[in-house]
Amino acid sequence: MSRPVEAVIAQAREFLGERITTNAALREQHSHGEDSQPRSLPDAVAFMERGEEAARVLALCHQHGVPVVPFGAGTSLEGHVTPVRGGISLDLSRMTRVLQVNPADMDCRVEAGVTRQQLNAHLRDQGLFFPVDPGSECSIGGMCATRASGTAAVRYGTIRENVLGLQVALPDGRLIETGGRVRKAATGYDLTHLMLGSEGTLGVITEIQLRLHGIPEAMSAAICQFDDLAGAVDSVIAILQAGIPIARIELLDDVQMGACIAYSKLDGYTARPTLLLEFHGSPAGVAEQAALAEEITAGFGASGFQWATDAAERNRLWKARHDAYWAALALRPGHRGLATDAIVPISRMTELIVGAKGDIEQSGLLAPIVGHVGDGNFHTVILVPPGEDGLARAWALDKRIVGRALALGGSCSGEHGIGIGKREFLEAEHGAETLAVMRQIKTALDPRGIMNPGKVFLN
Amino acid sequence: MSRPVEAVIAQAREFLGERITTNAALREQHSHGEDSQPRSLPDAVAFMERGEEAARVLALCHQHGVPVVPFGAGTSLEGHVTPVRGGISLDLSRMTRVLQVNPADMDCRVEAGVTRQQLNAHLRDQGLFFPVDPGSECSIGGMCATRASGTAAVRYGTIRENVLGLQVALPDGRLIETGGRVRKAATGYDLTHLMLGSEGTLGVITEIQLRLHGIPEAMSAAICQFDDLAGAVDSVIAILQAGIPIARIELLDDVQMGACIAYSKLDGYTARPTLLLEFHGSPAGVAEQAALAEEITAGFGASGFQWATDAAERNRLWKARHDAYWAALALRPGHRGLATDAIVPISRMTELIVGAKGDIEQSGLLAPIVGHVGDGNFHTVILVPPGEDGLARAWALDKRIVGRALALGGSCSGEHGIGIGKREFLEAEHGAETLAVMRQIKTALDPRGIMNPGKVFLN
Repeated sequence: MSRPVEAVIAQAREFLGERITTNAALREQHSHGEDSQPRSLPDAVAFMERGEEAARVLALCHQHGVPVVPFGAGTSLEGHVTPVRGGISLDLSRMTRVLQVNPADMDCRVEAGVTRQQLNAHLRDQGLFFPVDPGSECSIGGMCATRASGTAAVRYGTIRENVLGLQVALPDGRLIETGGRVRKAATGYDLTHLMLGSEGTLGVITEIQLRLHGIPEAMSAAICQFDDLAGAVDSVIAILQAGIPIARIELLDDVQMGACIAYSKLDGYTARPTLLLEFHGSPAGVAEQAALAEEITAGFGASGFQWATDAAERNRLWKARHDAYWAALALRPGHRGLATDAIVPISRMTELIVGAKGDIEQSGLLAPIVGHVGDGNFHTVILVPPGEDGLARAWALDKRIVGRALALGGSCSGEHGIGIGKREFLEAEHGAETLAVMRQIKTALDPRGIMNPGKVFLN
Repeated sequence: MSRPVEAVIAQAREFLGERITTNAALREQHSHGEDSQPRSLPDAVAFMERGEEAARVLALCHQHGVPVVPFGAGTSLEGHVTPVRGGISLDLSRMTRVLQVNPADMDCRVEAGVTRQQLNAHLRDQGLFFPVDPGSECSIGGMCATRASGTAAVRYGTIRENVLGLQVALPDGRLIETGGRVRKAATGYDLTHLMLGSEGTLGVITEIQLRLHGIPEAMSAAICQFDDLAGAVDSVIAILQAGIPIARIELLDDVQMGACIAYSKLDGYTARPTLLLEFHGSPAGVAEQAALAEEITAGFGASGFQWATDAAERNRLWKARHDAYWAALALRPGHRGLATDAIVPISRMTELIVGAKGDIEQSGLLAPIVGHVGDGNFHTVILVPPGEDGLARAWALDKRIVGRALALGGSCSGEHGIGIGKREFLEAEHGAETLAVMRQIKTALDPRGIMNPGKVFLN
């Protein structure tokens, strides 16, 4: 007797041909993201070229009760793309067409496999850019599925504020359009936002209508250092309250700054709490913003405020920030990195980070801190020692930090999502009844439970 | 045999006392909003003081199958608050507590009955404000339910970008919290955005966690006039593309400008297409923005660019804009106003408005135009002649304009919602399958169909 998945593979082969495969290397490649969850193989990998194909595969899987796990660039940090119950890994990485760019409306439509870097390269000569920047080479479909954000969210918003509409293949094989091209609309339920952050458990995002922004006339970067963490965080609150339209504002703690100095050769700085800032606007506006930010940070004990308007120096500083993860890993060769993602209201940030630093010390592990402080979000890159209990110790530390964030009115994830790793915190964060409502919606749209099972909800 | 609603009234009286009433005057007052739909009486009006009470009333109505229609300030323009099938009008207008203001986090928590004006009066001495400004004296709960926006959306976003979380009483009597206090989170389905714009058909919004903004250091207003509409609209596109962080940018057509000149004594202007602009920022930034905007508008044929930094002149101009509806009505004493709400991608705006002006002319009706052109959204205030066929002619004109907007990739409503009046357009806009998904969610959360029946969906 053949298994249901074999029926799906046979029937999908009729329209996908060799694009559905049980090749061992491809299955292995689709067994994990960039996370620390146990790997698990899909039964087959299916490479999509159009949303219609995704819908057809879903219809088959729905009919046969076979799990489907969407796969974009495979950069998930919480196990989203791991097929914990096998089934079909639905790979969207070949859907890389930029379908439409409308400069007058500052919007565009892309297929789910387009990466942020691809899109921005495509847009550059039109004076437009897509601002959501999680740092990694992720796909825009994946960013939508996890409700991603990154360093520029403080100014330009997260993916939530930059998606106008979606094409979604539903679990039963319907292919729908949500939202539209208009800037705002008050016409029925907001299915777009329901899908953003649903982590592939309600459907597969196949096309995205995005808002774009004009490349600012001028940009400048600044850096300053503090003797204590509180001064750095309090500066951020004051800068936001002053209404400075800061484009990016990132915190590096003493350990992370030390790592970056070594890794990125940042001469002239010391291993102290550091803020890295970026300003966008007119030349005069950027200068004014920087002067005001300097004045505010000086009031909180900052020293060495430097600002750089030339692209080379700005890129050098921000490249160091983007390489922070690798700089952290370089502190302990042979260790893996486990990224935490807690977020709190900004006023509780100092309390959270100081507490987290105590937790890190107590754990005996090394864990540099980088933070999207303008959002109240920060990551510790816990360096996981090799050997049996290394990962368990790292998870325990992650759990302690999440517990602190929840106690301060925060959330276990600012931007990485729930996936497998954060499921245990969802009820504590939202309450049992709110979680029950999420499950009702899940059941309504995916009655057979084929969409990315084992994610978001604990069974 | 007593009707189900009588059982609800009797049981609710046990905990509401005189706050549930069948008083004729109160029922009449709750039979309509500010729309042109036929009135319909509720069987009773229940005045809420807490979310818990709303949940208790809903539990009773769920048990007995009695309709519930949430009522805030009664400013709906599409029949949202009309109890077309009777039942309980759930009045939230007494829930006016500002529960919490967190200046460091720039957020606050309010009850659903708080109005925008109340909140801003409460916040003023803390240097903060809530920017979503639909013009009317609406409640924030009502703004959430209809996904409202208004004149400042081009800079600060709509209600969608300014709500962090909600307390919602569900149709079966559960009281849940959605979202939270953090700026962003990637933790489960976005129930907050599912509720925003659900028009009371999925639950009753009882408390709201809002984002706030710092009152800008400087503000200025500007006005300029054009010989043709296209020049005005093209100026807007160019201003947005230049990245000028314009706070408001509103269009008045020749007819509306004529009405405003007469009504608000705007001496020195002529009845031509007019742009009204507002800039927020630092003093130097505001001056720079205004200079750039003047240069751009001059390039599109604007004349008489004037800008006003003093509060009195700025308020005079914007008061004229806020009074545009009354100015329009004053053109034809004895007529009512029917507001259209079409929205298109900004690049199609000229085509839509020029087409709409042709439709207006053909209809023989008078209908001044005011537009949130920065969003692609505009209103015509159709002046409805007294007499039998006046309303039918006005609806027919509305329908023609909506048809144009849909054909241009737009939407039937930018900010007023679907209610009763726009139900017939929802399928044309979103497609039958997307609408079916909305219905699946409705059925999952409100299986007995008690929440605001007859709204959003046809039947």
